[in-house]
Amino acid sequence: MTRVLDRKRSVLGRLRSLGEKIIGDMERGEHPRLEIPSRSVSNIRYDPVEKGYVLGDGKKVRSTAAYSHLRRFTQFVWIASFAKSLIEEQRTSTLRDVYYSSQAYGVDFEEQVESDELIMDLEAYLGFPREDFNIFPAERAAIFGDLTIEYTVPGYEGRRVNLLTHPDGLMIGHSLKTCEFVDTGAERVFVIEKDAIFNRFIEERVYERYKAILISTSGQAPRAARYLIRRLRVELGLPVYIFTDGDVWGLHIAGVIVYGSANSAHVRELHTPDAKWIGIWASDIEKYRLPSDPFNERDVKRLEELLRDPRYSEDPWRSELLKFKKLRRKSELEAFSRYGLSYIADVYLKDKMDLYG
Amino acid sequence: MTRVLDRKRSVLGRLRSLGEKIIGDMERGEHPRLEIPSRSVSNIRYDPVEKGYVLGDGKKVRSTAAYSHLRRFTQFVWIASFAKSLIEEQRTSTLRDVYYSSQAYGVDFEEQVESDELIMDLEAYLGFPREDFNIFPAERAAIFGDLTIEYTVPGYEGRRVNLLTHPDGLMIGHSLKTCEFVDTGAERVFVIEKDAIFNRFIEERVYERYKAILISTSGQAPRAARYLIRRLRVELGLPVYIFTDGDVWGLHIAGVIVYGSANSAHVRELHTPDAKWIGIWASDIEKYRLPSDPFNERDVKRLEELLRDPRYSEDPWRSELLKFKKLRRKSELEAFSRYGLSYIADVYLKDKMDLYG
Repeated sequence: MTRVLDRKRSVLGRLRSLGEKIIGDMERGEHPRLEIPSRSVSNIRYDPVEKGYVLGDGKKVRSTAAYSHLRRFTQFVWIASFAKSLIEEQRTSTLRDVYYSSQAYGVDFEEQVESDELIMDLEAYLGFPREDFNIFPAERAAIFGDLTIEYTVPGYEGRRVNLLTHPDGLMIGHSLKTCEFVDTGAERVFVIEKDAIFNRFIEERVYERYKAILISTSGQAPRAARYLIRRLRVELGLPVYIFTDGDVWGLHIAGVIVYGSANSAHVRELHTPDAKWIGIWASDIEKYRLPSDPFNERDVKRLEELLRDPRYSEDPWRSELLKFKKLRRKSELEAFSRYGLSYIADVYLKDKMDLYG
Repeated sequence: MTRVLDRKRSVLGRLRSLGEKIIGDMERGEHPRLEIPSRSVSNIRYDPVEKGYVLGDGKKVRSTAAYSHLRRFTQFVWIASFAKSLIEEQRTSTLRDVYYSSQAYGVDFEEQVESDELIMDLEAYLGFPREDFNIFPAERAAIFGDLTIEYTVPGYEGRRVNLLTHPDGLMIGHSLKTCEFVDTGAERVFVIEKDAIFNRFIEERVYERYKAILISTSGQAPRAARYLIRRLRVELGLPVYIFTDGDVWGLHIAGVIVYGSANSAHVRELHTPDAKWIGIWASDIEKYRLPSDPFNERDVKRLEELLRDPRYSEDPWRSELLKFKKLRRKSELEAFSRYGLSYIADVYLKDKMDLYG
């Protein structure tokens, strides 16, 4: 409970400072101006120590002295005040909601992309991700495993539940993201790109046999899931293993969980640097003789992009990208079913855990 | 428990008859042949009494006497035997898994669409949807509300949980679909197209204020959700209300929940004829002066298709389609946020319940 409250208090403190800065400028007879960390590509760099994308020192200045800045400045201040009221009223919102809500205040954005950009500016300014001021993405992931949590959301404060409760999985939303971890019998975390394999793992009792908490990301991991994965690693010390389809898109889904995305270089706590991507590798396609499909043009283009990405300069990323380049073929997690439905849990998972676990 | 076991027993009985039919043909020295209800468009009709699509009496014959039928016949029998083993081993599978699993048996399908088609043939032959022989779609929906259930899945038999347990919602998968309803304090069901509004309704305590079970379909309702919605209506007698975006796609999402889809005309129990689509209507866009966007070409094309669809020949479908045609504009559920985040629950929902509830 304390941890969550502390964060909210920090965010509120930062929002208050923002307001005081503007009022202070005006009281001194100056035009209010703000310096916001620049999120432009030229200010994003890969940090080999942090093992993730970070922002440089570049700032953009928004001053009410410049007529051309006025609109953006006003919109930015409105978003900050909206964020403050969300926290104070213990309400949540989505990027889309913020866009529409602005119309209630006569603060018109031409398109949602405008308000989205300013919300990211606010993240950069405050140094906190938007989830900390209660703006959430709509996408959700699911979790299942032996972890007892305590809720901190209004109406549920202090209530506890064990995440083995519902064998279809529990949605990872605001309540789960902000929970406290009470107790766990798990020794590791398996993150899985696909619901179908998440289900398969539950059915094959992987959570028992490997004492694992299972998380399904349903494609690119939503930020709430990435945040939760990091917390499981940092707070509970559980090693994290990531399973994706055997293609460049799967590799990148794992990469974003490990290193973070360029899009969120301005926020921390969304990546898990020592999480391990353990399959499906390009080399697994050969090793396990998996049914596979040839790369299409999009795959080839994406492969070339990822080969230039500094996040993927080390193995296994590098060697597997080169292997994909050679093979020009891809396989899905479901492809293991060619050896029977339990093969992926009985053989493949065991092989990987012998290697890494 | 009994209900679920009874269904499995019926499906197993039908599968056994299928095997005995083939063996019987052979013992009589005849070429095995099967008659499978035809799912072709010419055999699908709208039944005004059932208020849904149903199959006519057309059959297609698959005979091993015809060389051209042999491949399909063999594949069909393999799928039936795979279904039988899934039920007997209490395992589940997906359409994609079945496609890959076939390769373990040397039964090669050229593409997944081939095995998908035969799985639908098996549904038509058995008169049971594929969920009853443990083949599930990957998509999932979520539920939240005052409903106590008892699981029937292996490892969880007899365990009970109340669906208010986890305020991010519980995934609707195999376990939830096959549960028994034990007790509920709810008086209605709200089905919502979008996770964001599902969350909003939870946050605004709609489940308490309206004594409602909330279901999020995340777009087109997965079959497990449609099956569960029907069960809530039939077994618990709860009225069902559907909220979608105010566009032709949303209208059709509601339509499929109410009337079923042409694709699943050969299976019953997936539609809820007296569920009410109560918004966002085209007329609501005007009435509530919602922020809206103009129709694009796809919207216009879809509108014309739906105007010719017999399911939508009655009001409010018909009148709202015509209204969309006149307006040529669409609004999202989030658009209500222009009046503040709680407006959709405090005003819109109340208006609709005064009208229908």
